[in-house]
Amino acid sequence: MQLYDCETAPSPRRVRIFIAEKGVEVPRVQVSLKDGEQFSAEFRAKNPLCTVPVLELDDGTCISGAPPVCRYLEEIYPEPALLGRDPVEKALITMWGRRMENEGFEAVAEAFRNATPGFKNRALTGPHEFAQVPALADRGRQRVALFLDMLNDRLAATRFVAGPVYSVADITALVTIDFCRWIKAEPADRHADLRRWYDAVSARPSAAA
Amino acid sequence: MQLYDCETAPSPRRVRIFIAEKGVEVPRVQVSLKDGEQFSAEFRAKNPLCTVPVLELDDGTCISGAPPVCRYLEEIYPEPALLGRDPVEKALITMWGRRMENEGFEAVAEAFRNATPGFKNRALTGPHEFAQVPALADRGRQRVALFLDMLNDRLAATRFVAGPVYSVADITALVTIDFCRWIKAEPADRHADLRRWYDAVSARPSAAA
Repeated sequence: MQLYDCETAPSPRRVRIFIAEKGVEVPRVQVSLKDGEQFSAEFRAKNPLCTVPVLELDDGTCISGAPPVCRYLEEIYPEPALLGRDPVEKALITMWGRRMENEGFEAVAEAFRNATPGFKNRALTGPHEFAQVPALADRGRQRVALFLDMLNDRLAATRFVAGPVYSVADITALVTIDFCRWIKAEPADRHADLRRWYDAVSARPSAAA
Repeated sequence: MQLYDCETAPSPRRVRIFIAEKGVEVPRVQVSLKDGEQFSAEFRAKNPLCTVPVLELDDGTCISGAPPVCRYLEEIYPEPALLGRDPVEKALITMWGRRMENEGFEAVAEAFRNATPGFKNRALTGPHEFAQVPALADRGRQRVALFLDMLNDRLAATRFVAGPVYSVADITALVTIDFCRWIKAEPADRHADLRRWYDAVSARPSAAA
């Protein structure tokens, strides 16, 4: 199998960190989003959504999107478990992972894609053009501010995002916090619990992936 | 355990159909979204996002959102498998389920919530107010049209959304197609494969849930 990746993009970094935490090696192919390689006919055949990450299996099956790829990798490399070990833990990691995506990652993307000149008519990922909506740049920033407060409150109560154990929810959260730099947002001094957690997860070797 | 539900809302219907396919019974508590019961302090303590579905376990643990609740139910009631049986099937069902959400369900919600007078300042679900954005009502409808074409193409190639086997991706897709009525959209005559699939999944007893 091989992973279609882009070193500079946040979404595939979620998978790179996941792979590093598993302690395995997966060959990677770089797709230059800057040069529009995701829109080539060849890549579109692998993922009509024109996004990375995509995991291509040896039989040609293509799995696109970070959570589907992580699901596959968790099944074939169960240890260490990053999607949970029992029914409750699995459900709560699913829940918190989605909250990191919906309230965090997507909010940063909304702010970024609707305000960045290079993303004109690319307000949404994918093959279809959608105009930037200036109101969404503001809304995205508001949502990011709410997300940082929420995450700080959560991390005042638990060591990791989904509970006592490091999981894929921490990976999505870490990538989201680093993605915040793209819109010049960051945790404030008052987000002490978020900062404590951020320093801890950033110090793991996987964070360099 | 008990499920916090709202009979008239599409999101909790995803879980009701899932439960019906499992052939189990889960006690349900109705939350009147129309009367704003989701914003009560009591409900907010169960789900700060103020949304249904929420599954409350006997120890008080609350799991919110359709996919996390379905994950829990799949773990405790594995048969019939609705989230996949082997690594590739699990990954592809995750991928197609998310596509139904992101390209379908969220597009209908975008069109509906940004155009419906009763949803003023509730353009996004959750406890925070966000103004309607008229441009998103249009964008949502464009996205729904693209979704219907995409899903028809997919169902020309496979019996069910994620492949040869009925799965949670079909449940999300079915609920999305019915949700389309809220914005007066529907599959066109040319969507023959989508219609064939829709008739089949709608005829399952679970669809009445």
